[in-house]
Amino acid sequence: MKSLEALPKAVLWKDKQLLILDQRALPEEEITIHCQTIDDVFEAIKTLSVRGAPAIGIAAAYGMLVGLGDEDRQENMPALQSVLRERADYLISARPTAVNLAWAVNRMMGVACEVPDDSVEWLVARLEKEAIEIHQEDIRSCHQIGDYGVSLVKRYPKLLTHCNAGSLAVSEMGTALAPVYRAYEQGVGVHVFVDETRPLLQGARLTAYELSRVGVDCTLISDNMAAAMMSEGRVDMVLVGTDRVTANGDVANKIGTLNLAILCKHFGLPFFVACPISTIDLQTSSGAEIEIEQRQAQEVTHIKDIRVAPVGIRVENPAFDVTPAELVTGIITERGIVYPPYLKTLAGITER
Amino acid sequence: MKSLEALPKAVLWKDKQLLILDQRALPEEEITIHCQTIDDVFEAIKTLSVRGAPAIGIAAAYGMLVGLGDEDRQENMPALQSVLRERADYLISARPTAVNLAWAVNRMMGVACEVPDDSVEWLVARLEKEAIEIHQEDIRSCHQIGDYGVSLVKRYPKLLTHCNAGSLAVSEMGTALAPVYRAYEQGVGVHVFVDETRPLLQGARLTAYELSRVGVDCTLISDNMAAAMMSEGRVDMVLVGTDRVTANGDVANKIGTLNLAILCKHFGLPFFVACPISTIDLQTSSGAEIEIEQRQAQEVTHIKDIRVAPVGIRVENPAFDVTPAELVTGIITERGIVYPPYLKTLAGITER
Repeated sequence: MKSLEALPKAVLWKDKQLLILDQRALPEEEITIHCQTIDDVFEAIKTLSVRGAPAIGIAAAYGMLVGLGDEDRQENMPALQSVLRERADYLISARPTAVNLAWAVNRMMGVACEVPDDSVEWLVARLEKEAIEIHQEDIRSCHQIGDYGVSLVKRYPKLLTHCNAGSLAVSEMGTALAPVYRAYEQGVGVHVFVDETRPLLQGARLTAYELSRVGVDCTLISDNMAAAMMSEGRVDMVLVGTDRVTANGDVANKIGTLNLAILCKHFGLPFFVACPISTIDLQTSSGAEIEIEQRQAQEVTHIKDIRVAPVGIRVENPAFDVTPAELVTGIITERGIVYPPYLKTLAGITER
Repeated sequence: MKSLEALPKAVLWKDKQLLILDQRALPEEEITIHCQTIDDVFEAIKTLSVRGAPAIGIAAAYGMLVGLGDEDRQENMPALQSVLRERADYLISARPTAVNLAWAVNRMMGVACEVPDDSVEWLVARLEKEAIEIHQEDIRSCHQIGDYGVSLVKRYPKLLTHCNAGSLAVSEMGTALAPVYRAYEQGVGVHVFVDETRPLLQGARLTAYELSRVGVDCTLISDNMAAAMMSEGRVDMVLVGTDRVTANGDVANKIGTLNLAILCKHFGLPFFVACPISTIDLQTSSGAEIEIEQRQAQEVTHIKDIRVAPVGIRVENPAFDVTPAELVTGIITERGIVYPPYLKTLAGITER
């Protein structure tokens, strides 16, 4: 059995300290950010030092506690709750599209508002317990997604993935990559085409890095090579993560995902999405309602501070796109794989 | 009327010297390569200092003459012809996919084999005349492609293009961009989405550069954003160049073109290709027979010498893909726009 021990960890909570692996420096350097203040956490999320919907949620949950002891206003419970509300709003504002960020922070706020005891110390300890529980639940979810998805990888061992929905995007193992790692552990001859994923190259920098660290067979391609690989019969399935699934099954994910889903339809290939239940947002009825984060032009005009386009050129840089439900073959969650009609099956699986 | 005077020139023949604009240095620097030897010409083609099927053909035609006077063996006609044959084979070997390279060099060889007079001086002068004629024909072709294609741009003014099929890819104006420039001259409110075109970023570096130099309204996007732009109704048509059209209408063009053609089909958008007749290769029956140039991994793992992927990662880097004829709405040539059935219409238009 192959070992996954070399898989990197995006977020660690150690001796009441939040440690974030700076994914902007990968694959060249493995730098750990020791978050001292809530601003450090905000910056790490905003600048994508930590990215991936579940990993952002975990970092934000712990982030609610970072430097909390240094705040002036925690002499009494209402003052502390007010501080926590400000912190929650601040962290949620770091990135608008991923639902897990708001989900995790709001879950922490739910705890903050319980207050069966009015001890400030009690609440801080209770919040830490909740953040650790969010983290542990994500670990369990990833393993379960791996268990449910592994049969798909056995059936479709030549995969293509986009962006990074691996160990670096979650607690461990990944969402989209969890079934891949599970299959790899079991000796399945899996091969992964890794889309480099412009503009920020999460595929080239992160997915290629973590797959090759544990020895999963993979090949890096530019995003625009996917159709050519498919036309040559070298792809059995596309498997990606997601930042938000709406009630009708529309999938928001890294820009370029819609592209792949359309290619799958054209070539008759299955297009699967993997995510924890926390990514399913039944409050949002369809993808049309999702706010798509627009990021700065420099991400497109520059690559690592090197200019690759004329000065002054206009740029579009949406961070995500929305794949309509009719292009989604199935969604792998920690409670099983759901298939259309999503309006019914997603409601069903989240209710359990 | 808007002026196109600011359009850059890829290849110039001046005082019997071949000048090539080094497109690898654009958009930051405008460096001219003064070719002294046939090796300089080979390198310029091989390393993409000059690229674009027609521009390569023009450079190679002049290239047959560069440094010819310095060769030992031109004391008599058979020796000179033998030198020319070696030069032809050498230049053709620089890039295998584009048909214009072989086409232009073979046309020069046709002249070299005519020999109604056995004067070496006569032949050299005749070859220069032929190269200039190839260049002039391309200029006329570009203008005619512009004239035939302008009605399409008027009908579909929101375009998306891939790679560079503009002034820098040909003698002047471009193939795919010629109709855009013509429409722009006539005051049509045209807007061009420019795919950055990984791995070598010809869109970001070259198309964005030449469009903005003359003031055509354009927006740079990563290749994987095309589907999102189309889903928002912001694209009326995709218009690209090509390196080779086979007898059945299959189109070889820069990697990523197939991707766009499939997106067009999905969104019900027209997908047009522009090229001179010299790019139509009736000797090749379908795209399956085209040799696809595989380029080095470093183009994908690095961007301008900056590493963006883990050391040792495996890479695919096909320079081109093949779009099947059934996805091609029409092909704009200097003799008019041809539509399916291509087996018949392409044969017809090349015969005239």
